[in-house]
Amino acid sequence: MREASQRPNVFAVATIKLWTDDDIAANPRLRAVFDDIRATRKSDFVNNFWRALANQPAVLERTWAALKEIMVAPGEIDPLTKELIYIAVSTVNACSYCVHSHTAAARAKGMTDAQYGELLAIVGMASQTNALANGMQIPVDPEFQIER
Amino acid sequence: MREASQRPNVFAVATIKLWTDDDIAANPRLRAVFDDIRATRKSDFVNNFWRALANQPAVLERTWAALKEIMVAPGEIDPLTKELIYIAVSTVNACSYCVHSHTAAARAKGMTDAQYGELLAIVGMASQTNALANGMQIPVDPEFQIER
Amino acid sequence: MREASQRPNVFAVATIKLWTDDDIAANPRLRAVFDDIRATRKSDFVNNFWRALANQPAVLERTWAALKEIMVAPGEIDPLTKELIYIAVSTVNACSYCVHSHTAAARAKGMTDAQYGELLAIVGMASQTNALANGMQIPVDPEFQIER
Amino acid sequence: MREASQRPNVFAVATIKLWTDDDIAANPRLRAVFDDIRATRKSDFVNNFWRALANQPAVLERTWAALKEIMVAPGEIDPLTKELIYIAVSTVNACSYCVHSHTAAARAKGMTDAQYGELLAIVGMASQTNALANGMQIPVDPEFQIER
Amino acid sequence: MREASQRPNVFAVATIKLWTDDDIAANPRLRAVFDDIRATRKSDFVNNFWRALANQPAVLERTWAALKEIMVAPGEIDPLTKELIYIAVSTVNACSYCVHSHTAAARAKGMTDAQYGELLAIVGMASQTNALANGMQIPVDPEFQIER
Amino acid sequence: MREASQRPNVFAVATIKLWTDDDIAANPRLRAVFDDIRATRKSDFVNNFWRALANQPAVLERTWAALKEIMVAPGEIDPLTKELIYIAVSTVNACSYCVHSHTAAARAKGMTDAQYGELLAIVGMASQTNALANGMQIPVDPEFQIER
Repeated sequence: MREASQRPNVFAVATIKLWTDDDIAANPRLRAVFDDIRATRKSDFVNNFWRALANQPAVLERTWAALKEIMVAPGEIDPLTKELIYIAVSTVNACSYCVHSHTAAARAKGMTDAQYGELLAIVGMASQTNALANGMQIPVDPEFQIER
Repeated sequence: MREASQRPNVFAVATIKLWTDDDIAANPRLRAVFDDIRATRKSDFVNNFWRALANQPAVLERTWAALKEIMVAPGEIDPLTKELIYIAVSTVNACSYCVHSHTAAARAKGMTDAQYGELLAIVGMASQTNALANGMQIPVDPEFQIER
Repeated sequence: MREASQRPNVFAVATIKLWTDDDIAANPRLRAVFDDIRATRKSDFVNNFWRALANQPAVLERTWAALKEIMVAPGEIDPLTKELIYIAVSTVNACSYCVHSHTAAARAKGMTDAQYGELLAIVGMASQTNALANGMQIPVDPEFQIER
Repeated sequence: MREASQRPNVFAVATIKLWTDDDIAANPRLRAVFDDIRATRKSDFVNNFWRALANQPAVLERTWAALKEIMVAPGEIDPLTKELIYIAVSTVNACSYCVHSHTAAARAKGMTDAQYGELLAIVGMASQTNALANGMQIPVDPEFQIER
Repeated sequence: MREASQRPNVFAVATIKLWTDDDIAANPRLRAVFDDIRATRKSDFVNNFWRALANQPAVLERTWAALKEIMVAPGEIDPLTKELIYIAVSTVNACSYCVHSHTAAARAKGMTDAQYGELLAIVGMASQTNALANGMQIPVDPEFQIER
Repeated sequence: MREASQRPNVFAVATIKLWTDDDIAANPRLRAVFDDIRATRKSDFVNNFWRALANQPAVLERTWAALKEIMVAPGEIDPLTKELIYIAVSTVNACSYCVHSHTAAARAKGMTDAQYGELLAIVGMASQTNALANGMQIPVDPEFQIER
């Protein structure tokens, strides 16, 4: 005899409205950002993250502008490596949504199965040694201080 | 009037003994690991992390073997990128020791100031969007599911 | 061809029994707490958190007593602000349940969409600068020390 | 007999150069940001966080612009409450620098001892219930879903 | 009117293939690990964690070898206590999968309801005082330094 | 040429006053708690955590009462195991103060070097597999659901 509250729970909705394409089309400020996302990514698909941020136009604009500058604009770190770093951070922060979206992005940018396997091994290894170093409160070696 | 307990605190020692070179030299099992660390890294310097792990020979052996395999052996991800990922994980796990040691390692492997700046920007950006996605509990887009 | 283990997973039950109203009614010690939750909140709805804690009567009593004293009793911080802080903590701790329950609580206490948008922006901003400060291991300015 | 490596460790420097006022004065792009920080805050003191970010002019500009918009510009959440939320996030992210700097900022904005005590109680209480809810993997109540 | 993207989301698949028994049977290297898991645990059931790791044979081998040595081999800490510690770590790291799997493992090793209730109380209490100590940045007492 | 702001930083004071024995003696409400801490622990030493909490008498009373009930009162989990769990939680939460204080407490309750080594190995192993499971977003096996 299973109680109602104990039944498998398929509840998984945002705490906030996810804006549809129709909602966006009716709002010029939001539409401008969505148009830029689509043009920049050369894809019609806009994922839920941006549909949730649409509730706060200023946050949407600022977040997209920063993401475009950091993750899309050419830099010293190549686009795939940027995604590997993003996956690593999202994993440690336990952000399920971000792990899924950036793993998909890394695959789209050419991440091989072998690279993904190594990434996971590094994230696991680092998390283990982080725990060991924090657990023993190891003092930083003076040798790590580089003259600046 | 400042109380004794309120005075600047310079207390920063490990919760465990840090083994000196003399200690290590007297223990063949530990010496074998330290010799391999020195040979592998082509450097006489062995940092405090390993001197703390020396208290548990089995953990020392296993951790060094895994680290050597994951971080030193040639793979699909280049050595510098591995360090960037390690810094990212250590930052989010708030491991001060690991941030210092792996930032030094990345610099030794050629990390430029520009690359470091971009790494920090990515880690900051990811942490921000992780918080936004977790804060709004955004459901994962079915589009992120790749057939496997 | 999708394997059984790869099929969409709707598994989401607690690791512990969730007590029903009938279960609670049969146990005077638990019923006293549930009665006080209902009276304090002026609502018949008791959420799953308390139904799970019911497995440990002492933890249930202590947790409810502390929550009532901290979150319900009048204090220097108003009830809505308390909920905003609770959401912020729950987001960083990646507690999906708590994010949902306290966002609902904040809305019930009058949180506007604009306030919610600002809260999310602050939590994101703080998480970003936390990562930057931890990543660079910035030393605390002596100026932040106030005489006490 | 205490080994050198075991002696109290006073090593606490950034992984990166902290720019002095002279360094900043010599660089127009950085000086513009520092001038705006000083003008906005009506104070000559610029804390280490910005002196570290100065290594990456683009990150410095973007971070200050966002912080000014989110934390300084008038909004729906009052300035002191914003700092309370910032302290809460920084505490959970274990960012020592940020806890110190934003606690000082909150005090400068009028945080009383009683408010600070309540803030700490809320952050502690939330962290406790976050652990309990994650430990028991409590499913979200359907009642928390608000029509949107 | 609920939009498609807002509908309850039952999306919960791994970012990676979960290997079936047939897949494993066809690969001698993987089969050797799975055979050892089954023999060691005296059970035919192999959980999804290992089916996901099977994508990286080296990570699978290393992780199982370490887990077997740390969690299965006789040591100074009894098997049930090891699982209690594992649950505590997994809870704080917000690893839903690990909380479920190690709570089941602890129950299989004899964890009583009373022990589980105390474990949860300790994890909650520790998380609360961790937040209080980090929030107030309490300096470590010199008394905690034991001569080593 | 090292700038002042770059010099080794020995700044490590609480964000709050640490109450001295004289301060406590002058306040009956606080003195009652400190007397009970001393009587319960059969030791005159009261560590900084309580001296910081003394700023909030209600938080001090509640925290000590809960800690006494959970950590000191006899239960199903023995006192040393409780401390091992506390160290594990504090390590993952990156609470330096708590790691130091509870490692000292565990030693005082008889933790051997071998037990401490195993504890560290378990915490490291769990952190590693937590990262792997979260990184691959592994779905929970239905087999982990126990009828309740």
